[in-house]
Amino acid sequence: MKKMDKNIHTYISCDCDYENADIVLFGAPFDGTTSYRPGARFASKAIRAESFGLETYSPYQDKDLTDIKVFDGGDLELPFGNTNAALAQIEKYCEKVIQDGRTPFMIGGEHLVTLSGVSAAIKKFHDISIIHFDAHTDLRDSYLGQQLSHATVIRRCHDIVGDGRIFQFGIRSGEREEFLWGEKHLFTNKFTFDGLDNIIKQLADKPVYLTIDLDVLDPAEMPAVGTPEAGGVSFNQLLNACILCKNLNIVGVDVCELCPVYDNSGASTALAGKLIRELLLML
Amino acid sequence: MKKMDKNIHTYISCDCDYENADIVLFGAPFDGTTSYRPGARFASKAIRAESFGLETYSPYQDKDLTDIKVFDGGDLELPFGNTNAALAQIEKYCEKVIQDGRTPFMIGGEHLVTLSGVSAAIKKFHDISIIHFDAHTDLRDSYLGQQLSHATVIRRCHDIVGDGRIFQFGIRSGEREEFLWGEKHLFTNKFTFDGLDNIIKQLADKPVYLTIDLDVLDPAEMPAVGTPEAGGVSFNQLLNACILCKNLNIVGVDVCELCPVYDNSGASTALAGKLIRELLLML
Amino acid sequence: MKKMDKNIHTYISCDCDYENADIVLFGAPFDGTTSYRPGARFASKAIRAESFGLETYSPYQDKDLTDIKVFDGGDLELPFGNTNAALAQIEKYCEKVIQDGRTPFMIGGEHLVTLSGVSAAIKKFHDISIIHFDAHTDLRDSYLGQQLSHATVIRRCHDIVGDGRIFQFGIRSGEREEFLWGEKHLFTNKFTFDGLDNIIKQLADKPVYLTIDLDVLDPAEMPAVGTPEAGGVSFNQLLNACILCKNLNIVGVDVCELCPVYDNSGASTALAGKLIRELLLML
Amino acid sequence: MKKMDKNIHTYISCDCDYENADIVLFGAPFDGTTSYRPGARFASKAIRAESFGLETYSPYQDKDLTDIKVFDGGDLELPFGNTNAALAQIEKYCEKVIQDGRTPFMIGGEHLVTLSGVSAAIKKFHDISIIHFDAHTDLRDSYLGQQLSHATVIRRCHDIVGDGRIFQFGIRSGEREEFLWGEKHLFTNKFTFDGLDNIIKQLADKPVYLTIDLDVLDPAEMPAVGTPEAGGVSFNQLLNACILCKNLNIVGVDVCELCPVYDNSGASTALAGKLIRELLLML
Amino acid sequence: MKKMDKNIHTYISCDCDYENADIVLFGAPFDGTTSYRPGARFASKAIRAESFGLETYSPYQDKDLTDIKVFDGGDLELPFGNTNAALAQIEKYCEKVIQDGRTPFMIGGEHLVTLSGVSAAIKKFHDISIIHFDAHTDLRDSYLGQQLSHATVIRRCHDIVGDGRIFQFGIRSGEREEFLWGEKHLFTNKFTFDGLDNIIKQLADKPVYLTIDLDVLDPAEMPAVGTPEAGGVSFNQLLNACILCKNLNIVGVDVCELCPVYDNSGASTALAGKLIRELLLML
Amino acid sequence: MKKMDKNIHTYISCDCDYENADIVLFGAPFDGTTSYRPGARFASKAIRAESFGLETYSPYQDKDLTDIKVFDGGDLELPFGNTNAALAQIEKYCEKVIQDGRTPFMIGGEHLVTLSGVSAAIKKFHDISIIHFDAHTDLRDSYLGQQLSHATVIRRCHDIVGDGRIFQFGIRSGEREEFLWGEKHLFTNKFTFDGLDNIIKQLADKPVYLTIDLDVLDPAEMPAVGTPEAGGVSFNQLLNACILCKNLNIVGVDVCELCPVYDNSGASTALAGKLIRELLLML
Repeated sequence: MKKMDKNIHTYISCDCDYENADIVLFGAPFDGTTSYRPGARFASKAIRAESFGLETYSPYQDKDLTDIKVFDGGDLELPFGNTNAALAQIEKYCEKVIQDGRTPFMIGGEHLVTLSGVSAAIKKFHDISIIHFDAHTDLRDSYLGQQLSHATVIRRCHDIVGDGRIFQFGIRSGEREEFLWGEKHLFTNKFTFDGLDNIIKQLADKPVYLTIDLDVLDPAEMPAVGTPEAGGVSFNQLLNACILCKNLNIVGVDVCELCPVYDNSGASTALAGKLIRELLLML
Repeated sequence: MKKMDKNIHTYISCDCDYENADIVLFGAPFDGTTSYRPGARFASKAIRAESFGLETYSPYQDKDLTDIKVFDGGDLELPFGNTNAALAQIEKYCEKVIQDGRTPFMIGGEHLVTLSGVSAAIKKFHDISIIHFDAHTDLRDSYLGQQLSHATVIRRCHDIVGDGRIFQFGIRSGEREEFLWGEKHLFTNKFTFDGLDNIIKQLADKPVYLTIDLDVLDPAEMPAVGTPEAGGVSFNQLLNACILCKNLNIVGVDVCELCPVYDNSGASTALAGKLIRELLLML
Repeated sequence: MKKMDKNIHTYISCDCDYENADIVLFGAPFDGTTSYRPGARFASKAIRAESFGLETYSPYQDKDLTDIKVFDGGDLELPFGNTNAALAQIEKYCEKVIQDGRTPFMIGGEHLVTLSGVSAAIKKFHDISIIHFDAHTDLRDSYLGQQLSHATVIRRCHDIVGDGRIFQFGIRSGEREEFLWGEKHLFTNKFTFDGLDNIIKQLADKPVYLTIDLDVLDPAEMPAVGTPEAGGVSFNQLLNACILCKNLNIVGVDVCELCPVYDNSGASTALAGKLIRELLLML
Repeated sequence: MKKMDKNIHTYISCDCDYENADIVLFGAPFDGTTSYRPGARFASKAIRAESFGLETYSPYQDKDLTDIKVFDGGDLELPFGNTNAALAQIEKYCEKVIQDGRTPFMIGGEHLVTLSGVSAAIKKFHDISIIHFDAHTDLRDSYLGQQLSHATVIRRCHDIVGDGRIFQFGIRSGEREEFLWGEKHLFTNKFTFDGLDNIIKQLADKPVYLTIDLDVLDPAEMPAVGTPEAGGVSFNQLLNACILCKNLNIVGVDVCELCPVYDNSGASTALAGKLIRELLLML
Repeated sequence: MKKMDKNIHTYISCDCDYENADIVLFGAPFDGTTSYRPGARFASKAIRAESFGLETYSPYQDKDLTDIKVFDGGDLELPFGNTNAALAQIEKYCEKVIQDGRTPFMIGGEHLVTLSGVSAAIKKFHDISIIHFDAHTDLRDSYLGQQLSHATVIRRCHDIVGDGRIFQFGIRSGEREEFLWGEKHLFTNKFTFDGLDNIIKQLADKPVYLTIDLDVLDPAEMPAVGTPEAGGVSFNQLLNACILCKNLNIVGVDVCELCPVYDNSGASTALAGKLIRELLLML
Repeated sequence: MKKMDKNIHTYISCDCDYENADIVLFGAPFDGTTSYRPGARFASKAIRAESFGLETYSPYQDKDLTDIKVFDGGDLELPFGNTNAALAQIEKYCEKVIQDGRTPFMIGGEHLVTLSGVSAAIKKFHDISIIHFDAHTDLRDSYLGQQLSHATVIRRCHDIVGDGRIFQFGIRSGEREEFLWGEKHLFTNKFTFDGLDNIIKQLADKPVYLTIDLDVLDPAEMPAVGTPEAGGVSFNQLLNACILCKNLNIVGVDVCELCPVYDNSGASTALAGKLIRELLLML
């Protein structure tokens, strides 16, 4: 019979204590600068709930979630309408996790939350690089007059990490100026993951922050994002790219921009949940 | 900053320990005999998640959830495809709660779960009566050859409690035979809550089990049920009927048949959550 | 065990042969002049399929579908893109039914199909009157240059039946000119069914065609129509109006404008099916 | 044949020039502080597009949009993620309209936009009062640490207009503290519009700002709002309340919180559009 | 003009009599053990209705449904909540079809219905093998305490047919234990159809039961299944695999797990209908 | 601050005057002969509204919409229920554009609108050829008794342009008779774009009309069409085919059959918008 204890809610099988965990999974339900279709705030809750349709075992990597130690810290409670305050809270949480020697695994929210993750990580890992999977360059300097935006987030990250430290894959949308600026300051591979294996060898054991905007996927497989952009990579391609990253020294991960409001069939949320399983097992 | 503790998930404000609680809220996610549109299994999770759109305070009763002691035990884990086993588990849980001197408040699932609640309650409260709000009589003797069904549940309850102990309101659908049988064995008020006040006076302080099939409401206000039946009561009418019940000695409550799959706007789930708040405050 | 015969599909319990039937139920899946949101073509199929969520017994009228003789002829196969040809086919079918001494009960389709029903009926019943429940006057003389349109249908019926023969109820939308024209040529009761009982008495045993545009109902109860118009009547009010009509000599009925594409919860289709049950029992 | 001019997009029939207009209709697509379900940013575009399913004539008031002069200015382009900047832009636009002697009619957006409307109006109309139709008190002093929020907007308006100037109707949700605070500083009528006629007489020809949060309506008729709250008023009741306001000296109007993302049937958007027609004709 | 006969409802063009048919198509609308998202019960009705959007001709195989003899027996009427009774009815029907020398073609329902098909077939074809296309191994011994479940169905089939008789393709989800057990008792090809051609040659003219769980497809093409699992095969790959099977002696077929409730666009149902056309033509 | 001018609505960046434009983009919202699922009438409005989620720059062609001159003429106002009249209006508009030396770019609407485009073009370009991307042959001679239908449109075009002038790609559905007829009168490449490059060379600088039925795409990427047909080409394949066409002398383009009603996620509309950007840049 069911025990009469608390009703604890985690991503499937991530029931380790904080003290004993290697990875800290948590949600950053912020979508305040989303310009097109808000709703990424609901992603972490949806992924957690739908994760029970998954198995804990991966036939891709022959590993099982029951073999690793992950603490699911639930979702941060962020203020609405105050971008700076929300980012600061996310950064503070990430920083604590990193200082405690654990790897933060953040479920966005919109892509701007990556700025908090990178800001927290660089305090400990000064020579950090960023691997960025996305449909969009996110390299605008400002957007509708705002410097903090999901459309400027990688530019803001560049402000912190500097030239030659950011490696983008899957990019298929942006202003001409963004592409031109990018050519001078970072590595962009358009449309595919070509060249990722070389970058990984090059980065060797340097600290890396991995950020995945789920709209890098084709909208056929991932329709429920803020800005669906046709012509993306497949799940299997993304999965292979992620598994390749096991050769990196990853010190922080985020998966952003699932917008469950537009996921009528539930397939997008299920995919995001499966990708997170594979990323957790890859780490 | 967010504390790094467990991610506990309850209906809003129902965070009392089991030991100190007066009411035990829990979900019975069973919909195995649903003949038309399954999905009531998802009701309790949806109501809990959406309850955070509510306030804890009721301007209807001038009471606040923070003033009462409710333990939210989460959802039972029930087997799929085995009706007897699922009902037995629900009954066992209800019985424990009742024997411990607490009031079970069950969120269905389909209406058949009421049979488990009543079976558990009658062990302690031998002269129990049932107040039943529903669009359907649920008085078939069997349905498609099965004696255990959401369409036979009140007939099965009658098997246990006997004549003159069941009081139905809001009924507007059934076979002719069900209505004829009902006239001989129980009290049925068609379409409205007329006469409820008299029944309440008559029951005085005898033990009462209250079961609400949400399809008693008009589908305009509650479209997301297994079998929407036009011409129902309004939320305000149902709310008034529920508040009237504060004069009863209620020993068990259930709210059944929300089917969130059909709740595109979220309004049905929100209504169910609000009704539960009012019922908790009424008890 | 299931017999291995044909898979016959009817509205619940309407399984009488044509030869023995008093009423002929059929679908006219035409929506070719719908100006706003097409899809009424799917109404009859949806209503038939969903009718199995209903009981055959009506507690409103204490009658049962098993006691009456209805043949469900399925749906007409109408050409797309040719309004005249489609209307002609519908008229021909209605005419045959009427000449055979049966009452046609047509499920639209958009409201223009009423013109075919009335055209067929007047050949036998020269002094026919029309009872019309609708949100819209449908009294334009032409619409976007077309004389045959869902927005002109009652005006076209007036061309046939003449002054003083049309009685509208529930009307709450139209151009100023339509209302002004209507005042001179027919009876319009805005917003409600007030006065219907008098009209019924006045019509005594004269032949009457009853046409119901489901958008006469409030969109709360009937959102899935081509043109939802707030402020309508309730199902219970419409049901009472329909039951009142049992004192009329009804020679044709139609129920139009359900658009199942917009019926996510299924509640609109279920309501339409229930209304049809009550109308069949009323006849 | 279609003329080859520009493709101008307005609410139905609101095609007057700014210079000649009495009323300036515009959208303020801001939903940055929405705590529950964002999406009100899409309201004005949806209402404009769906307005073509309406007639210009109102049988309720026997008036026609073609008889009045309204300029539809389209939507403001507001920054995302910066609440102060967005509010300032809205206020500036309203102020210009008011200084030019026209009445601003703002389509929200979330309810916080009202603060900009009131701030603009009080510069010209120092003794302004506010009529407020809503399900929620909106009287929190801060919400999740923020003073600017859709849940605090009326409290912020009170900061500006002071005691005895705000009149709330239809309220059925809030914290206990909000209701207690409200009792001392403004007039709140719970659940209904009772007493509105007296307030209107009392205000006589003083300047009044009218703000309508569409969730004052029952979710049956208006499911597509950020926070559906069961037990609301009907469209007909709200319409009557609005028409009563024709006896006021209204200097600004807003209609907020339609969230078209949750309007699968389109009925909520259609209702909002119809309400705006009636308000325009009432002014 | 439409003839006034019965309204017979079949999959497109499958209008042969039982007596003259080679193939008997029928629906088994059972989803009682579905653990995640029920609704496969609606699959056969939806596929039949939507089949009229298809052509009868296949340009892939240059064959036409009008050239083959298929009887569509409609749907079985199964009891709800009693797994054993439902399975027994399905088995009885299949057995009759097989004993009459026809090939049963079953549209599920959930995957557990395959057990009935195999149980019926093995009575006549003692050395039957099973070709199984699926995302999931379905090899658990029990699930939530139940031995009969959609998650155990192939294990139960193995109980009947024994080692070396089951050939799985496309598998990409399961517990570690299921994969390990499978290695010893049957053939599993993960992710793709690689090796199918060899298996087909090996089976030569031995009797084969073909079971297709539609979630073998990528959720991009088939989102509307009970458990969408990213990374699946494409329709063209599945189609090719099915056409390869024309070289087998197939004595029974089923297509399972379409869940139309989650098929907002209708594309999943359309795909399932097209696949069935190709399978019928392949047989 | 926002200027108080008109609210002009165009596809992103297509704000050139008619006089100075090279291309005239416009919508032909006609879906009157759609036999399966109507709603293509809403395509042009939806594409225009959603185009603001796109960038003006194409990384595929390294071109930008700001560099070309496109006038967006909005949508034609077509009569409902009168196919001939609607086609005549579309033709008249196209003819004017062509006579004025501009290239018409029509957004359907159903595919029958192509007939108007071709009829207009052939008046100026007598030796016009047609490149046709589609899932369906559209070569029936009549459909349900009608010669003008979305299912006959290419046959009607053949009536005008004659043998050897039509080149179909991606075709995967049709009656056997259509394929047989097609073999004699035009070029059909089934399933893919194989051979397109040769056709393009062959056509050299002859005038070409390009018509794209969006259902040529796989329903995974484009579910929101009238008739989803599994097994289609990918967006990247279609994009490459379109870019190849830059070597043609294109004198008219249309993109048809998007049906936004079935586009819950918005991904289909976004894809169509992106395809139009690429086509505009290709021209």
